[in-house]
Amino acid sequence: MTKIQIITAALLVIGDEILSGRTKDRNIGTVAEKLCSIGIDLKEVRVVGDDESAIVDAVRELKNRYTYLFTTGGIGPTHDDITVDSIGKALRLPVAIDPRAEEMMRRSFEARNLELTPVRLRMARMPKGAELVVAANSGAPGFQIQNIIVMAGVPSIMEAMLVAATDRLMTGAKFGSCSIVLHRPESDIAELLAAHQAAYPDVAMGSYPAFVEGQYRTELVLRGREPALLDEAYQALLDALKRHGLDT
Amino acid sequence: MTKIQIITAALLVIGDEILSGRTKDRNIGTVAEKLCSIGIDLKEVRVVGDDESAIVDAVRELKNRYTYLFTTGGIGPTHDDITVDSIGKALRLPVAIDPRAEEMMRRSFEARNLELTPVRLRMARMPKGAELVVAANSGAPGFQIQNIIVMAGVPSIMEAMLVAATDRLMTGAKFGSCSIVLHRPESDIAELLAAHQAAYPDVAMGSYPAFVEGQYRTELVLRGREPALLDEAYQALLDALKRHGLDT
Repeated sequence: MTKIQIITAALLVIGDEILSGRTKDRNIGTVAEKLCSIGIDLKEVRVVGDDESAIVDAVRELKNRYTYLFTTGGIGPTHDDITVDSIGKALRLPVAIDPRAEEMMRRSFEARNLELTPVRLRMARMPKGAELVVAANSGAPGFQIQNIIVMAGVPSIMEAMLVAATDRLMTGAKFGSCSIVLHRPESDIAELLAAHQAAYPDVAMGSYPAFVEGQYRTELVLRGREPALLDEAYQALLDALKRHGLDT
Repeated sequence: MTKIQIITAALLVIGDEILSGRTKDRNIGTVAEKLCSIGIDLKEVRVVGDDESAIVDAVRELKNRYTYLFTTGGIGPTHDDITVDSIGKALRLPVAIDPRAEEMMRRSFEARNLELTPVRLRMARMPKGAELVVAANSGAPGFQIQNIIVMAGVPSIMEAMLVAATDRLMTGAKFGSCSIVLHRPESDIAELLAAHQAAYPDVAMGSYPAFVEGQYRTELVLRGREPALLDEAYQALLDALKRHGLDT
């Protein structure tokens, strides 16, 4: 068996508006789905407000714990956009206008007949040594510094930056998954599933209950990095359910 | 000026299915909105997987840092439901079947002609000393132990438990908020808004840009605990925008 490379990540969502409930986050699901699809394990998500010490503490902790740290939010031009300076502080790096970002913004703003004022130019600031993360649908870039990828909070722009950033990251073995839907309460299959999980420790098994139109519904999900093992566990589970009359 | 009581909270979302993107979380927004509406400041959210050490570490850290810690997910009957045992471990409290929960579940299951099997009875387990948190739409209860409120992951049940739990919590002064919508890029008002924020440090000011149907849109949001001060800051901001020709 070859050694499987595990690449991990955390996501830090930054913004008072998420914690107050005024804005419903849509980026967590997008990032989770994208990372899973390319073989990066999202291990943790945090949401903090527009608060320098909260951001600095979270960045320092998460960047050391995981292969990558993604952030969303707080890179606009207003006083409450403090992500860039907080990351500079967390890494003890100076923050300044990046000439490549300035040039990119100048072209973009000219094309829209907008002036590149000093306030707008704030969005070209980044910690020294950063690489631009360019989204086609945004005049201002995100960036990567060390293992930290800094993205916008607006979902459409975040998504474009996520695609651009992940294109150049290390990725690991992808998870495959398969699922079985039963029309019974999950407690019916809890014992059988626990025994099956014990028999296949390298395949992650989850059970997701719902109550839909007056009917119990339980989805069993199997996830694994080795296709052959995943398939074996899946077939064996189908057989076991059938044997116990639990396959519907 | 009377001293304002500040009550804080964190939310810990537990579940592999959120981190893999298979399930899109809907509880963060619901909890954020509810807590904000009753005067509890949600300061931080974390999402971790079905992993005992990740849950234990997060619970210990968050319960000490904030007035309350809310958790969602992982309280069902299957092997991947490890929230209750993890919280017992974090608090160094024994976990056992609670007789009140057992009685409640027995009545609920009888009414549905279902047997209260040992597997289902797992859902009556909680750390010693817990108080039940009963949701009308669930046969199994959540609970509160110390300053930790443990709720289901299914959004409709979570919401009912949240209402039941928060009814008996301490709450602080509520935030009021008001907003101004402008049809221009937020960089136009960044300087003015920063100066205004500096003049009213006790009113939190945020700026939320969007690009809707080819038009710039910026919403300025003011939030504060003192209604008179909030109103003053709001009126003064309207005046300042008008004075600078930026009020549209």
